[in-house]
Amino acid sequence: MEPLATCEDLPEGYGFVLLPACLTGAMLDLTRDVVTLTRDLVDIESVSHHEADIADAVEAALSALPHLTVVRRGHTVVARTELGRAERVVIAGHLDTVPLNDNLPSRLDEETGLLHGLGTCDMKGGDAVILRLAATLSEPVRDVTYVLYEAEEVEDVHNGLGKLAASDPDLLAADFAILMEPSNAGVEAGCQGTLRVDVTTRGERAHSARAWRGVNAIHGAADVLARLASYEPRRPEIDGLTYVEGLNAVRVRGGVAGNVIPDECVVEVNFRFAPDRSTAEAEAFVRDFFSGHEVTLTDLAPAAVPGLGRPAAAAFVEAVGGQVAPKFGWTDVARFSELGVPAVNYGPGDPMLAHTQAEHVPVADIRRCEETLTAWLST
Amino acid sequence: MEPLATCEDLPEGYGFVLLPACLTGAMLDLTRDVVTLTRDLVDIESVSHHEADIADAVEAALSALPHLTVVRRGHTVVARTELGRAERVVIAGHLDTVPLNDNLPSRLDEETGLLHGLGTCDMKGGDAVILRLAATLSEPVRDVTYVLYEAEEVEDVHNGLGKLAASDPDLLAADFAILMEPSNAGVEAGCQGTLRVDVTTRGERAHSARAWRGVNAIHGAADVLARLASYEPRRPEIDGLTYVEGLNAVRVRGGVAGNVIPDECVVEVNFRFAPDRSTAEAEAFVRDFFSGHEVTLTDLAPAAVPGLGRPAAAAFVEAVGGQVAPKFGWTDVARFSELGVPAVNYGPGDPMLAHTQAEHVPVADIRRCEETLTAWLST
Repeated sequence: MEPLATCEDLPEGYGFVLLPACLTGAMLDLTRDVVTLTRDLVDIESVSHHEADIADAVEAALSALPHLTVVRRGHTVVARTELGRAERVVIAGHLDTVPLNDNLPSRLDEETGLLHGLGTCDMKGGDAVILRLAATLSEPVRDVTYVLYEAEEVEDVHNGLGKLAASDPDLLAADFAILMEPSNAGVEAGCQGTLRVDVTTRGERAHSARAWRGVNAIHGAADVLARLASYEPRRPEIDGLTYVEGLNAVRVRGGVAGNVIPDECVVEVNFRFAPDRSTAEAEAFVRDFFSGHEVTLTDLAPAAVPGLGRPAAAAFVEAVGGQVAPKFGWTDVARFSELGVPAVNYGPGDPMLAHTQAEHVPVADIRRCEETLTAWLST
Repeated sequence: MEPLATCEDLPEGYGFVLLPACLTGAMLDLTRDVVTLTRDLVDIESVSHHEADIADAVEAALSALPHLTVVRRGHTVVARTELGRAERVVIAGHLDTVPLNDNLPSRLDEETGLLHGLGTCDMKGGDAVILRLAATLSEPVRDVTYVLYEAEEVEDVHNGLGKLAASDPDLLAADFAILMEPSNAGVEAGCQGTLRVDVTTRGERAHSARAWRGVNAIHGAADVLARLASYEPRRPEIDGLTYVEGLNAVRVRGGVAGNVIPDECVVEVNFRFAPDRSTAEAEAFVRDFFSGHEVTLTDLAPAAVPGLGRPAAAAFVEAVGGQVAPKFGWTDVARFSELGVPAVNYGPGDPMLAHTQAEHVPVADIRRCEETLTAWLST
């Protein structure tokens, strides 16, 4: 009888078992170039809450590297060098994507140098860089904690980095962190905080034919909108970066029926605040701004200080050429800030393309990030 | 063989056929007192679009009266005296009700003198008065056109009075009209018009973290609400009655998501205008009031002039004791005004109870309306 399969080239001491393809899952070859690796990651579907396959592949690939210690929590994988260096840095990226939008599998346009597809920009290009660094740098000059985590694109409670910070804060201890959020391969430092309040005005219902019997809550919101319309944003300079705050109505609702004086109007306001304000200070500012009105806090996420004074951060900024911009949008760098770890956003791709059907990333960005980080961790 | 049924007391010249109960429908006995007749009408369910049973019963009862000429259109029944009097008056009421709200069948509280149930107030008390007048006044001093019509409580396009005005305007020709809308058995003359516009402000979307890239349409509505909040109602005196106009936001909506600068905000405004303005003048006032903003007309119904100078109207007001109030809410009297027929609201019950679960009518109101109208049409 012929054998079902043979294998001549097993490493010494290894045998093999045959498994159906559905059990072997996706395999990642970390020796391939960073663009090919990006494509491999993109082509493993990993919409939030469905990161098992990609996390399995990442865990398997990293576990094969003898210079790393690998820990898995849910679908979050942490791999660390333990070389006893003076400094430790975290390099992190999320594995999940927003839902499919007829934009898989990946498609590389050789002419333009753009790699198209869901997750190319946000943020599997960054993930591929992380995996390449992990595979190629067996002795980085700084100890590195690589974090590839689940569920960044969904409600905060599911966020893999947030869960890890709660369950294993020691695993995230570091002098500096780089989050590979798309930033056009430039450094965007810190991030602004975000806060939401409902500003509610109240009145009394009446038939609109006899309006004097009621009190119009929508008219009562005139003052709320007038204050917003006259708001002038503060532009504080922090670590040499100019942030720009913003206070905006993002939704308004009110009304009962076409013939009823409305008894409630709610203006939903979003405050984006610079990293020199704590969450408590931000909330106090908004409550004061709307003083005399009913203000209900509905959402609050802290800002992240840029922390560019730390030696590891300064060296990194120098390695990328000294150009740093402030980050206006909220990102998971704020979670590092909460742990006392200064953090920057640095990754391939344009953040404006994230979550769009036409998402893509310049392969040059991916290569530049790999080269810059490799150089920074090697010298 | 025994006969299936016998009947000793048939009127001369009549026989009978046996029909199953489901075909005989509800019967109305117009010789019963007006409160009992109200209960009979209330207990025939007649939610809008389901007026067949009540219209059949009304048509059958009126057709049995030899002094009336009866015409039916859909579920609207018109009965006219044709005595060649110098004046003709229309007395009208709608047959439909708003949906059931666990408030049928009718319930008479002897102690308080209140008849409870869906439609008692709006407006089967008034319908019963009409049917009693039709049955008892074979030779009124003014020719009378009794109109009992369908679908007042739903969209304008279904309104039985509106349809009749379009299909058979001659049937509504008159010197004066009384609409038996609840008015606490007092005269409420004319009615204010009603107009709705959407006032829309526009902007440009942007991520709320980079608000300066967009234009906030909700902030743009600050001026719209400020104008509304400072509006002072006009109070014109017409035919000795003081009307009170009203300009109110009844709904407001705007917003895309919690992190997006909104590109559109719509304030829905309802203008209630006095009978000295035409619809065109009312629209012009609102467009001028919001000048500089995008204004879209969505609804427009004319006011009705009180017309108390007409002899029939003056005599009627004298018959009820001379007390007249202005009508603020829009009613079908405006349809008569459009046909050149001055009209008043006069009916039993408190209009504030219409459409409420606890709807009821004082039986004294019903009796007073019957007595007053009987006297006015008899002398």
